Amino acid sequence: MLRNDQLAQWDRENFFHPSTHLAQHARGETSTRVIKTASGSYIEDRDGRRMLDAFAGLYCVNVGYGRQEIAEAIAEQAKELAYYHSYVGHGTEASITLSKMILDRAPSNMSKVYFGLSGSDANETNIKLIWYYNNILGRPEKKRIISRWRGYHGSGLVTGSLTGLELFHKKFDLPVEQVIHTEAPYYFRRDNLEQSEEQFVAHCVAELEALIEREGADTIAAFIGEPVLGTGGIVPPPAGYWTAIQAVLKKHDILLIADEVVTGFGRLGSMFGSDHYGLEADIITIAKGLTSAYAPLSGSIVSDKVWKVLEQGTDENGPIGHGWTYSAHPIGAAAGVANLKLLDDLNLVEKAGTTGAYLNKSMKEALGGHANVGDVRGEGLLCAVEFVKDRDDHSFFEASDKIGAQISAALLSQDAVIARAMPQGDILGFAPPFCLTHEEADTVVAATVRAVKAVLG
Amino acid sequence: MLRNDQLAQWDRENFFHPSTHLAQHARGETSTRVIKTASGSYIEDRDGRRMLDAFAGLYCVNVGYGRQEIAEAIAEQAKELAYYHSYVGHGTEASITLSKMILDRAPSNMSKVYFGLSGSDANETNIKLIWYYNNILGRPEKKRIISRWRGYHGSGLVTGSLTGLELFHKKFDLPVEQVIHTEAPYYFRRDNLEQSEEQFVAHCVAELEALIEREGADTIAAFIGEPVLGTGGIVPPPAGYWTAIQAVLKKHDILLIADEVVTGFGRLGSMFGSDHYGLEADIITIAKGLTSAYAPLSGSIVSDKVWKVLEQGTDENGPIGHGWTYSAHPIGAAAGVANLKLLDDLNLVEKAGTTGAYLNKSMKEALGGHANVGDVRGEGLLCAVEFVKDRDDHSFFEASDKIGAQISAALLSQDAVIARAMPQGDILGFAPPFCLTHEEADTVVAATVRAVKAVLG
Repeated sequence: MLRNDQLAQWDRENFFHPSTHLAQHARGETSTRVIKTASGSYIEDRDGRRMLDAFAGLYCVNVGYGRQEIAEAIAEQAKELAYYHSYVGHGTEASITLSKMILDRAPSNMSKVYFGLSGSDANETNIKLIWYYNNILGRPEKKRIISRWRGYHGSGLVTGSLTGLELFHKKFDLPVEQVIHTEAPYYFRRDNLEQSEEQFVAHCVAELEALIEREGADTIAAFIGEPVLGTGGIVPPPAGYWTAIQAVLKKHDILLIADEVVTGFGRLGSMFGSDHYGLEADIITIAKGLTSAYAPLSGSIVSDKVWKVLEQGTDENGPIGHGWTYSAHPIGAAAGVANLKLLDDLNLVEKAGTTGAYLNKSMKEALGGHANVGDVRGEGLLCAVEFVKDRDDHSFFEASDKIGAQISAALLSQDAVIARAMPQGDILGFAPPFCLTHEEADTVVAATVRAVKAVLG
Repeated sequence: MLRNDQLAQWDRENFFHPSTHLAQHARGETSTRVIKTASGSYIEDRDGRRMLDAFAGLYCVNVGYGRQEIAEAIAEQAKELAYYHSYVGHGTEASITLSKMILDRAPSNMSKVYFGLSGSDANETNIKLIWYYNNILGRPEKKRIISRWRGYHGSGLVTGSLTGLELFHKKFDLPVEQVIHTEAPYYFRRDNLEQSEEQFVAHCVAELEALIEREGADTIAAFIGEPVLGTGGIVPPPAGYWTAIQAVLKKHDILLIADEVVTGFGRLGSMFGSDHYGLEADIITIAKGLTSAYAPLSGSIVSDKVWKVLEQGTDENGPIGHGWTYSAHPIGAAAGVANLKLLDDLNLVEKAGTTGAYLNKSMKEALGGHANVGDVRGEGLLCAVEFVKDRDDHSFFEASDKIGAQISAALLSQDAVIARAMPQGDILGFAPPFCLTHEEADTVVAATVRAVKAVLG
């Protein structure tokens, strides 16, 4: 590891970082953080500073850092066969085995998995397949996709359109016209604070019905949603939401895409969020938890219902015109097999549920009474604390005060704990690795209390 | 490695392969090929069958298979730090070093590299950046992208639209309206066979000028092109093409994206196709050759001109709303560093040029006189043989005869040599690893002669 300033200089001169203030970074006004190693719930930078990563990278290093079982699987695959493509029926032992392991774990109506690299490209695949599906079924007008405000489904042009957050639309001319948005199931931020959860669900359903009515059900192909809203604020759905929404979709013959990039493979304490909330999806998007980020790999799991039409499509039109060079990349597949095995061997899905319940309970007890904490919410190993100017009317702080970012910065500087200031609103998000101990959870909660105190008193 | 039929069954039951006839594969009518290991120019399947891979995977395993230097770099990185994100100024020694290595090799007007995973997502990034760029410059109408028929730029919704091949559009509702196509620089397939190369270039320029005139230059943001058309048929440009096209683009203030996914890092015998043909691109797309496919990694190299506007954009609007979780993934970055080092240490770029010249010359001598060979063309380690019903009028075989696919199949079954039947037209493509020996090149040519004889006499 280079220890002088050479890396920092190379970084500023050559490296275009995602989600970064480019000008400030290039001018040297923001810090360059060079991460060197990591183990369990901790990462360490090149200056030897250890940090407790309570966001597991970008909620993806689910089994924790430094798992030598996965590193070994990657190493073995790299030595034996780093790459061959999976076009036209080609595969490797790892990619074929992983496809079976995924289907063994997925809801029973699922049929096949198409491998990509990121959640974004998997959602891109999903829309491509759904357009194809409706063309094969002779419904060329049925193509638009409904997403929710505050949903997160990627950062591409169409997938960034599915995403319902201003940061990903502004100055990029998004959303594109094929994507339309409906109400977020965000009970804390309901317009009418008098509404009960049940009334709010009825409101979400009415909004969806009105949108479908306005656009015409024969123009709407699919509805996409995360079982729990992720980057939009870590918001579990109000009780009864998914049952009510699915009834509307069924009535109008609209497919359901469950985006399980965050929730897939255990983060809620269930293998899939679809199991957790009773979603019967037609397509499931998977990514982060599939490999715990040890290598890039994503997937689109398609149901029997969709697969049958895809088969009909290739019988009528020949091979399907969709492929990524690195689909089912052997390194990612080997990482996936080792990762899913580790989840089982260490019983980590159940552990995510119990540790998550402990973390959420502790956080609520510690901060639920603070004058500027409007909501402490979560499910499994997802937890969020939302800050408000006023607890009674839920009013926002000024965006320019960056309260969420300030608290996240204080957490890091005071106690070397990483949580994420979610991009829209003053929300501190937690999504630690499943190996988090109760002691580490205690550390996270205590550090958060100190950070909140430092910023808000 | 499982040797019984279990893998084949798992494959058919669970694995959705790209670019495959899904129904035939699921029914067991097409073969499942399980690749086990590989070395140099050869791959080997689970039944011990060795094949000479004259297409380097999907023209990506440029340094050849089984390079333990790259496998070691991946293994070391996986053990030390398999993942941390690169958002908000984070990096690793590998990702920062690679960013510098890329800029050291790129044309001198280039400034920064944004890392993705695939050529498709890199082109997605490019368009997003270009829309942002013109919004920052106050030109909200200047947004459409011109691509060429027969270009290949990805398989997503917008990137598949950039691609100018029927297979990637049909039944997918592509191209989207933001993408428009112009004439392919495909001299062999010119409408008027009387045209000289010079006249044909003038025709391509006139077509482009007419398109810009028709749409309005103030609506056109960028032009994207591969230095040599790849999946569209492996077609080097006619002499003077790029100089003439660039003059038109400059006149109308239209940015140039050079898609160097295939040509970047040496395939033409030059580090970049942009160097090879004198392109002065504003953005360069890189992927395959960056890691020789040992791990997924792509990049968008942006020029000083574009970067300055992006900086202005973040000064005006805050952090840029674009990021992939796996941007600059440590495993890919480590593979990239080791791969670029290997290219230098073994002088492989120069070798690609000399071996490529030998392969192209040998192929032309062996097949140029065949009654059904219309064209043998190539540049560097790219080579294509195009088959025609009639050499004089260049007339096509019936598509349903699948002459290209038949020859490719004969090549594999007779001599265990892999070449690719390009997806549109009867074109056999070769893009071997740079480590191909002259003896192996001789084997490829002799086997191709035998395959052509078997199918066409």
